[in-house]
Amino acid sequence: MNKQRKKAGPKAVVLLSGGLDSTTTLYEAKRQGYDTVCLTFDYGQRHKKEIRRAEKIARLSGSVWQLVRFGLPWKGSSLLDRSMRVPKNRSLKHGIPSTYVPGRNIIFLSIAASFAECIGARAIFIGANEIDFSGYPDCRQEFLRAFEQALRKGTKQGVEGSGITIHAPLLKKNKARIVAMAERLGVPVRLTWSCYQGGKQPCGTCDSCRLRRQGFIDAGMPDPAI
Amino acid sequence: MNKQRKKAGPKAVVLLSGGLDSTTTLYEAKRQGYDTVCLTFDYGQRHKKEIRRAEKIARLSGSVWQLVRFGLPWKGSSLLDRSMRVPKNRSLKHGIPSTYVPGRNIIFLSIAASFAECIGARAIFIGANEIDFSGYPDCRQEFLRAFEQALRKGTKQGVEGSGITIHAPLLKKNKARIVAMAERLGVPVRLTWSCYQGGKQPCGTCDSCRLRRQGFIDAGMPDPAI
Repeated sequence: MNKQRKKAGPKAVVLLSGGLDSTTTLYEAKRQGYDTVCLTFDYGQRHKKEIRRAEKIARLSGSVWQLVRFGLPWKGSSLLDRSMRVPKNRSLKHGIPSTYVPGRNIIFLSIAASFAECIGARAIFIGANEIDFSGYPDCRQEFLRAFEQALRKGTKQGVEGSGITIHAPLLKKNKARIVAMAERLGVPVRLTWSCYQGGKQPCGTCDSCRLRRQGFIDAGMPDPAI
Repeated sequence: MNKQRKKAGPKAVVLLSGGLDSTTTLYEAKRQGYDTVCLTFDYGQRHKKEIRRAEKIARLSGSVWQLVRFGLPWKGSSLLDRSMRVPKNRSLKHGIPSTYVPGRNIIFLSIAASFAECIGARAIFIGANEIDFSGYPDCRQEFLRAFEQALRKGTKQGVEGSGITIHAPLLKKNKARIVAMAERLGVPVRLTWSCYQGGKQPCGTCDSCRLRRQGFIDAGMPDPAI
């Protein structure tokens, strides 16, 4: 073979849920030259379909894929508790919704930081977005910066030298720009799953479905996953 | 019954490993008037004995006890990886040891914060100590303050009003002072388990055993657990 093996770049841990945002984030990390290792969580969410999609996407992108299972024995979110209803067609201006899983990104980022330390990665990528989002406090830049600071103080890497940096390349982009970015990066959009419900087809009415649909409309593109 | 039921104080989540430090922290939280809810983690540690001890201690103290299991699929610490040896009689001045579990307190505190949000607790108690300790970066005050700040930015409670506060009442105490404090608070010391190894009796040579033994010697008291 005369095809030279590409030199691996620095390692990055990518939080991959299997949705459009995290998949676009993965492809952006790859574009930046990172050797990507994807972390997916099974935390009892309704939409388990995204886990299988995440695995497919990770493998297709040539990344290592790692699943982490953890059971939060408490409820309090309609994303975990099947006796609660996922809100339909609610106004996105109406504060923090019932799909909010308390501390979810905080837990995800903590586990990602532990993993990053173990494999010698200095970067964590997360598809957090504070423009077209459901209003979760742990998706916002000021949280991510504060958390990065906590990692600088609380990890071996942080104490002994350079810390772990958190990259959220979609943070300030609206959904239409994310759709355009996904297109540009060659993201396998048809494989992504955004719906909060666990049905066969996206429900079309949860926050996540509605934000996604509006994004494709605004970007002037059809959604290949529907 | 003419015995009046004591009015429950504000709720606090206490990270309870079953060791001397976390047990003393639990009794201190109770002394401060908190209605204590104990969280214990099964994260694949060698010393599973401490989990059973934690349960006993929580029940004895009249607290609710909650076990959280999560499997970190990576190794990198002699506390988790049985192919590595727990260091014996090492100098505590020799930097961060192999028993360090990357990001352990970060993960524990994240899950505690999620739990606190769910049950409406505003305080988390942790037995972290930066005097007689193994040198783990996530046991230090500067980490705890930075993490508290991240919680202020990343949780519903933090965003909507007062945040979650992290209490580490042993942080600046040496082991002898912790032993004296445990005695004063009526801690059931005989039930506590500190050894990193999973044996029938404490090994006597790991960091944790040695710190504990020296603490009892310095406090001029026998260790009722040995």
